[in-house]
Amino acid sequence: MALKVGIIGGGQLARMMIAPAVELGLDVRVLAEQPDMSAALAATATGDYRDLETVRAFAREVDVVTFDHEHVPQEVLRALVADGVAVHPGPDALQFAQDKLRMRARLAELDVPQPEWAEVADAAQLQTFLDANGGRAVVKTPRGGYDGKGVRVVTSPAEVADWFGDGALLAEELVDFSRELAQQVARRPSGDLVAYPVVETVQRGGVCAEVIAPAPHGALRLTEVAAGIGASIAEGLGVTGMLAVELFETTDERLLVNELAMRPHNSGHWSQDGAATSQFEQHLRAVLDLPLGDAAPRQPWAVMVNILGGPADASLESRLPAALAAHPAAKVHTYGKAPRPGRKVGHVNAIGDDLDAVVYEARATAAFFGD
Amino acid sequence: MALKVGIIGGGQLARMMIAPAVELGLDVRVLAEQPDMSAALAATATGDYRDLETVRAFAREVDVVTFDHEHVPQEVLRALVADGVAVHPGPDALQFAQDKLRMRARLAELDVPQPEWAEVADAAQLQTFLDANGGRAVVKTPRGGYDGKGVRVVTSPAEVADWFGDGALLAEELVDFSRELAQQVARRPSGDLVAYPVVETVQRGGVCAEVIAPAPHGALRLTEVAAGIGASIAEGLGVTGMLAVELFETTDERLLVNELAMRPHNSGHWSQDGAATSQFEQHLRAVLDLPLGDAAPRQPWAVMVNILGGPADASLESRLPAALAAHPAAKVHTYGKAPRPGRKVGHVNAIGDDLDAVVYEARATAAFFGD
Repeated sequence: MALKVGIIGGGQLARMMIAPAVELGLDVRVLAEQPDMSAALAATATGDYRDLETVRAFAREVDVVTFDHEHVPQEVLRALVADGVAVHPGPDALQFAQDKLRMRARLAELDVPQPEWAEVADAAQLQTFLDANGGRAVVKTPRGGYDGKGVRVVTSPAEVADWFGDGALLAEELVDFSRELAQQVARRPSGDLVAYPVVETVQRGGVCAEVIAPAPHGALRLTEVAAGIGASIAEGLGVTGMLAVELFETTDERLLVNELAMRPHNSGHWSQDGAATSQFEQHLRAVLDLPLGDAAPRQPWAVMVNILGGPADASLESRLPAALAAHPAAKVHTYGKAPRPGRKVGHVNAIGDDLDAVVYEARATAAFFGD
Repeated sequence: MALKVGIIGGGQLARMMIAPAVELGLDVRVLAEQPDMSAALAATATGDYRDLETVRAFAREVDVVTFDHEHVPQEVLRALVADGVAVHPGPDALQFAQDKLRMRARLAELDVPQPEWAEVADAAQLQTFLDANGGRAVVKTPRGGYDGKGVRVVTSPAEVADWFGDGALLAEELVDFSRELAQQVARRPSGDLVAYPVVETVQRGGVCAEVIAPAPHGALRLTEVAAGIGASIAEGLGVTGMLAVELFETTDERLLVNELAMRPHNSGHWSQDGAATSQFEQHLRAVLDLPLGDAAPRQPWAVMVNILGGPADASLESRLPAALAAHPAAKVHTYGKAPRPGRKVGHVNAIGDDLDAVVYEARATAAFFGD
């Protein structure tokens, strides 16, 4: 009998697990929020992931439950665990991805390097933090933010006045970084762990635009330190499945943890075409407690460029023939989503020996889908 | 709107088209012979591909019809074309894959190098052929043979006495070959054509056991001649989609055409992990008349080893953890089929720089699934 894996959430991360699930012979099932989502091909149920009975009915039919996102409420997750369901990552780990204040506090306990931070309950506490940090800070809502939402750079408490009154906020030092990196690791429930090469991520407007794997100018010590941070967090937080650690590299060569994600992550999409084991296959292996795959690059360089939705008439389908004709070796991955402006609707991977050529190919292919 | 591709037949070739179809954003639909076949995830209909109304109802909902196998009857194919359905490959091409006598006659017209052959209607004609070819011949039923079925090596007409009386047979020279090769090409309806590197195939018991890509000792002229034969056949027979040409390489360095397949083929499974564009993605691009992808290898060597079904207790699932643990970089592909002895139930791909290491890795991984 095929192992049955249930994915909660019907977005593109669930969609991209379908291909490796088929190859590994898994029976993959998705609980989608709505019909016709990215992972519709494998959707066996539609419903609200916040509703315990909906999730419980879905979980009853599978061997392990995992996720397309981190938004399933703790009480739902804990009820599943109490039912005896294998949930990976589990609620004890996911709480740190769901709440940035808890994450900061736990990383501090683990002595993982991170920016200066404070829990600020009101304007006075934020002013104190600003005064101690050069008059500037990044303020974040502890829950619900993504892709730049729920994050503001401020010089005065008034700039987040609308956020106070609904629990404490997280204030962080505005790090003077030279670039952003991301470290991915996979961890099995039994403890085995595999680290991917650390990659460079380029953000535009708070959204990941481009990823270079491995990170250029990756001194051996840099890659070791990054992998060590990833392993410490995966072990310290009890993560199972894929973990992505977004990092700042400072001009004085420190690595500081920015954000965490406990699932496949945009910074790892390059691995679909560039690594021996893609992050999507790896996540499935890890959550099923199967032996992990080799995370080494298949070629010296891989570059991923996101495709963001443009005008409604610029559907991916209409642009695809010209892009494929111009770039026969580039890999275009689509998410089956309506192209609203700024929405991630796909990405392009290019791989090869020469970084300049690979960057060019990925960008030039993605440009066919732009405005 | 996503392009809708309909695949007739629910076997492993349809299954392996699912992954690239999802990435390209295609709406993939399968007409399966039965429930729970290899391509069940994408099955939207179940029925008999020999029944015109079943096929017609399926074809009505898609933009193009293609195939997991070559067994759809000519009258069904021609009725679809008359209905205005895009069918790729079309009946004019498929007739040559469906009837080996027609194939031999057409290749002779095209001056493609092939073994000596003759249409033999009775024992006397076969004896004449045997007398002219050293007393030995390969006799084939023109229709319905695969994986060694419908093929016998004979020294006397009595050995195929049971085959006479149901139409003429094909008699072929028993070629003194040094090895077997396979050449794949993809061709679009608009005429564009891409050739994969010629590969070496190793058969055991009439079944493909192993493929090395590209073929070792592949002199430039050999690869050019092989690619030229592939292109001549694709163009001469009007093939659309993937074409596989099985070749004998003789000790005096001639290439002679053995068999044809107008679909993705076992000799091209290496391309899933070893080529810039897998044969499954390429087939979809070609039948949809999308620009073809780069067919170049991603690494110097790729080796594919088939997994054949063993005893009923030796399910792929039960063997998978040990195989993955021992070979973290090997890619195991499963077909979701019950493991009857001798049945192809999956394959392993390995890729890398060193041929000996790649051969070892592919064979050693596949061995976990053996008896």
